[in-house]
Amino acid sequence: MSSTNGQVIRCKAAVAWEAGKPMVIEEVEVAPPQKMEVRIKILFTSLCHTDVYFWEAKGQNPVFPRILGHEAGGVVESVGEGVTDLQPGDHVLPVFTGECKECAHCKSEESNMCDLLRINTDRGVMLHDQKSRFSINGKPVFHFVGTSTFSEYTVVHVGCLAKINPLAPLDKVCVLSCGISTGLGATLNVAKPKKGSSVAVFGLGAVGLAAAEGARIAGASRIIGVDLNANRFELAKKFGVTEFVNPKDYKKPVQEVIAELTNGGVDRSVECTGHIDAMISAFECVHDGWGVAVLVGVPHKEAVFKTSPLNVLNERTLKGTFFGNYKPRSDIPSVVEKYMNKELELEKFITHEVSFSEINKAFDLMLKGEGLRCIIRMDA
Amino acid sequence: MSSTNGQVIRCKAAVAWEAGKPMVIEEVEVAPPQKMEVRIKILFTSLCHTDVYFWEAKGQNPVFPRILGHEAGGVVESVGEGVTDLQPGDHVLPVFTGECKECAHCKSEESNMCDLLRINTDRGVMLHDQKSRFSINGKPVFHFVGTSTFSEYTVVHVGCLAKINPLAPLDKVCVLSCGISTGLGATLNVAKPKKGSSVAVFGLGAVGLAAAEGARIAGASRIIGVDLNANRFELAKKFGVTEFVNPKDYKKPVQEVIAELTNGGVDRSVECTGHIDAMISAFECVHDGWGVAVLVGVPHKEAVFKTSPLNVLNERTLKGTFFGNYKPRSDIPSVVEKYMNKELELEKFITHEVSFSEINKAFDLMLKGEGLRCIIRMDA
Ligand SMILES: NC(=O)c1ccc[n+]([C@@H]2O[C@H](COP(=O)([O-])OP(=O)(O)OC[C@H]3O[C@@H](n4cnc5c(N)ncnc54)[C@H](O)[C@@H]3O)[C@@H](O)[C@H]2O)c1
Ligand SMILES: NC(=O)c1ccc[n+]([C@@H]2O[C@H](COP(=O)([O-])OP(=O)(O)OC[C@H]3O[C@@H](n4cnc5c(N)ncnc54)[C@H](O)[C@@H]3O)[C@@H](O)[C@H]2O)c1
Ligand SMILES: [Zn+2]
Ligand SMILES: [Zn+2]
Ligand SMILES: [Zn+2]
Ligand SMILES: [Zn+2]
Repeated sequence: MSSTNGQVIRCKAAVAWEAGKPMVIEEVEVAPPQKMEVRIKILFTSLCHTDVYFWEAKGQNPVFPRILGHEAGGVVESVGEGVTDLQPGDHVLPVFTGECKECAHCKSEESNMCDLLRINTDRGVMLHDQKSRFSINGKPVFHFVGTSTFSEYTVVHVGCLAKINPLAPLDKVCVLSCGISTGLGATLNVAKPKKGSSVAVFGLGAVGLAAAEGARIAGASRIIGVDLNANRFELAKKFGVTEFVNPKDYKKPVQEVIAELTNGGVDRSVECTGHIDAMISAFECVHDGWGVAVLVGVPHKEAVFKTSPLNVLNERTLKGTFFGNYKPRSDIPSVVEKYMNKELELEKFITHEVSFSEINKAFDLMLKGEGLRCIIRMDA
Repeated sequence: MSSTNGQVIRCKAAVAWEAGKPMVIEEVEVAPPQKMEVRIKILFTSLCHTDVYFWEAKGQNPVFPRILGHEAGGVVESVGEGVTDLQPGDHVLPVFTGECKECAHCKSEESNMCDLLRINTDRGVMLHDQKSRFSINGKPVFHFVGTSTFSEYTVVHVGCLAKINPLAPLDKVCVLSCGISTGLGATLNVAKPKKGSSVAVFGLGAVGLAAAEGARIAGASRIIGVDLNANRFELAKKFGVTEFVNPKDYKKPVQEVIAELTNGGVDRSVECTGHIDAMISAFECVHDGWGVAVLVGVPHKEAVFKTSPLNVLNERTLKGTFFGNYKPRSDIPSVVEKYMNKELELEKFITHEVSFSEINKAFDLMLKGEGLRCIIRMDA
């Protein structure tokens, strides 16, 4: 039992006081975990577009002051009432979506969209009592997607924590909390390409490159990377991408270009852009008879997916996935094992590293589109 | 070896001389089968909307005079060069789409859209020499979808013939040539509902009722029939449909009605209407996380399928199928066995019977929307 058990912890956290303004490292109070909650010490966190998106809060319901952050690795400090699966010292990855193990989704083999703990970007409080566990001089600071990892300590629902192999290096596997698992799972769990097949990946950001990594692991023989930004192609070669198509280089729709390259279409496609045009192209570029397209990118709320129903009738399949169809508690530990077995390479996703005090630099890098993942060391 | 082997056969056929005009029973000449072709004696044929559609030929390339018909059962009379799988006396069902067993589709486990023998409604001739095997006084009469079963004898590519159990009654199993297999396979092969699950079927014509029959066989506990025509509901009860929804009875979209009835959506849906609104509703009424919607109906060429990509991202699957994903030669014999085992009930689909000389009556019944399948006895 740690000496801080049941006590308020004072520690450093990066507080976003206002939309789009640099975060400020503040001393915050972190209350003890309540029923079904766990307090964890974050050792490493990284940054994903979603953090930047809710920090900019354009067209969003503004929830400030807030502690952002959702890709991280940490160690359990203490657990609240009812928590039996975890104990102090366990190594965990917090995840922005959860697994209650009780609802219809958790009980379904196919779904990971837990009714209780599904992502909610508007909520800045804990489920148990609709209150925040963070405060500064007694005034609440809001949570973000149930994780708020830009803090030395944070409180997370037990259903949003994957207990992982304690030998796994947290400065590497922390990136499995969100984007990398999302892309990897989209390919391995949903698109499921067969050995020797062809896969098109739309969008070569971290998520798309993780989808390509999934295709490489599955033994795809052709991995066609599609991006509007030619700068992405050099980097993508490290991820097993064998061919590149920039839609800007052609007059005809990119789905036709891909169909010509592949004798009628690819076997699988994975869309990781969030743009509706890419979603439609990703669907229409798969082969009739057996092609499967998987949508991953988060679109504008008003976007409309349009296609001829004949494209569907010709035996194409359209699927969508959320967090790569991984159930956080049941499945993420085995993804960590894939890294431990050297099946999955994570190092190539990690292009930068900064100390916690330099967290705004990580935001700058992402805004400039430089690199893939920047690890933020909490102890420095 | 039959005495007609290698000879032209003179027999009766129902010839559609012009679009929409009653067919006329004529004496036709049927040439011997050429390379990879088989001549069969048709014993029973039935009628499907597609026959009526190409007989009316509205907005279609008119191909007349033509011998229509594609749902039938017959016996092999003689075989052409290269045919080793069939011999005189074999019982067969002709199918409007084929299986060459050589192309990428035939080799794929997932597809039945054979590159060589895929349906072609514009072609009125045989593939081998681009000529018709039918003539009247030496003038060609065109084929229809490679089957032309409204004739006592017809010539069919070997790839479009399913060799079936000779004990199976051809006056029943002939309906497995098209619509019934299409609906049944859409559910059993593509939607694949689990035991105890809920299934919505849009459109309660023969195809939709066969989809419902598939849901019954799969052990679905709720089968929700959706049709704009309330007259269909009484009939549908025989097919295991447990609940009925008429979209006309509600102000809100039918997908919302179904979601309310089923605590968030059905597990599976099968669309058998050919109408785009029903296709969209069928997709949007499946449960997030695990729902699968299957499109079967043939839409207008200009129809556009539109939905929010969020419906896809919430882990819904959209699929389409052609002939219920059955490969005609490999799979249809086992569907006949399902009937022989009493797993599948076909009698309830057969609501009328006429003699060949009364074939225009069968067209009238279909145009009036009466019944499901009318069997045409060739010997009467
Ligand atoms: N479903 C989930 O659980 C989940 C989790 C994390 C991220 N995401 C989503 O995945 C998507 C990708 O995330 P990321 O971090 O890799 O983003 P990113 O911005 O780093 O990469 C996206 C790439 O797509 C390219 N692109 C944009 N429009 C394109 C088009 N029309 N055709 C081809 N390429 C195009 C861009 O040039 C860019 O390289 C985002 O929409 C993100 O919101 C989803
Ligand atoms: N893919 C294939 O291989 C294949 C094979 C055979 C038939 N089909 C297609 O399957 C479809 C059904 O064939 P069928 O013979 O059963 O047709 P049908 O006309 O007998 O039945 C269609 C039913 O759908 C109903 N309907 C129409 N619009 C509707 C709507 N918006 N909502 C709910 N119900 C609606 C009609 O009232 C009718 O009862 C057709 O489009 C046909 O072309 C496809
Ligand atoms: Zn749950
Ligand atoms: Zn993320
Ligand atoms: Zn073939
Ligand atoms: Zn038909």
